[in-house]
Amino acid sequence: MDGRNKDNRGLILILSSPSGAGKTTLSRLLLQRHTQLSLSISATTRPQRPGEVDGKDYHFVTKDAFATMIHNQALMEYATVFGNQYGTPRAPVEAVLAAGGDMLFDIDWQGAQQIKLSARKDMVSVFILPPSMEELGRRLIARQTDDLDVIQKRMDGARQEISHWAEYDYVIVNQDIHQSLDQISAIMTAEKLRRSRQANLPDFIRGLLEG
Amino acid sequence: MDGRNKDNRGLILILSSPSGAGKTTLSRLLLQRHTQLSLSISATTRPQRPGEVDGKDYHFVTKDAFATMIHNQALMEYATVFGNQYGTPRAPVEAVLAAGGDMLFDIDWQGAQQIKLSARKDMVSVFILPPSMEELGRRLIARQTDDLDVIQKRMDGARQEISHWAEYDYVIVNQDIHQSLDQISAIMTAEKLRRSRQANLPDFIRGLLEG
Repeated sequence: MDGRNKDNRGLILILSSPSGAGKTTLSRLLLQRHTQLSLSISATTRPQRPGEVDGKDYHFVTKDAFATMIHNQALMEYATVFGNQYGTPRAPVEAVLAAGGDMLFDIDWQGAQQIKLSARKDMVSVFILPPSMEELGRRLIARQTDDLDVIQKRMDGARQEISHWAEYDYVIVNQDIHQSLDQISAIMTAEKLRRSRQANLPDFIRGLLEG
Repeated sequence: MDGRNKDNRGLILILSSPSGAGKTTLSRLLLQRHTQLSLSISATTRPQRPGEVDGKDYHFVTKDAFATMIHNQALMEYATVFGNQYGTPRAPVEAVLAAGGDMLFDIDWQGAQQIKLSARKDMVSVFILPPSMEELGRRLIARQTDDLDVIQKRMDGARQEISHWAEYDYVIVNQDIHQSLDQISAIMTAEKLRRSRQANLPDFIRGLLEG
């Protein structure tokens, strides 16, 4: 089984959620638990914030550089959010998948929709919901990084993001971070066991029947 | 989440495999681990063997009684194997699913195919493969319950069963029983998180957006 799986391409795991639903913490814990999982780093024209590291949090690029990436089809998806452009560089994703690793995409519904429309069979999408809007508001306030009208804007953005829940394969209500982590891990395990994803099963079966 | 799931119907989990691939042990361990999971007991016209309990291993019925069940549409599926009839009584399955429990079906490809053709959305099918035919033969011999030409017949039956692997949603190579158990558990967890299976999500989302 291990031998065959090494030859299988990896999965694209898309996590989307409104801000404050716990996606960033979940992503961090998932990357710790699953060593074969890498995080896709988005490119953005948004200004670098204090504490952010170029190449780790984002690839910070100019608007001209971003336009060039679009022109060269070097982005798998891109979108404009609050006036800033965000996109997913294609090359690192293809390299990880070809080596049998999995790629975690922390992107919004616009990005997920573009990747879905490209009809990629290696994509699995999970939408993370907050248990309630009150809880979402509390989490946004607890961060203390945003002032109140930014929080209001994010609550409106959250409602818009949530309205796209029906475009995802799986939906998780994040009440307990460890339960949600187990649930996403189960989704990854299950998706790799799908008959249609196990590229080398026909050869294994042939060997079995001839053996 | 718990509250909403209680209102969801359960899953039909179909496990098929050639004899000797470990399905019976896996089923027993699954039932121990998942208390919400019940085993569907097949009806059969096959004679009761020493040690078998009526109503636990099978419902042992006459050919006439079996024919009546077919006539009354009281069976979800039925098939003839080695000259004996086997079928799945419908009523207990519907009762368990309606109460939010899950039902485990230990049936062959013929039964799985009939349930699949009925287009049940609550069905998830898993095919269990042996790591090799040599290992399958060793397991059949180790049982010491069958003589050699029965074993030969079962090996031929195994090849025929295996030839239907492509009709299943998931395929597991049973190299390690505990790993296989974890994999089937992950499949159950993941399938319940599918957006399309969470019947009450639209109401939850409405509440979220209006809240």
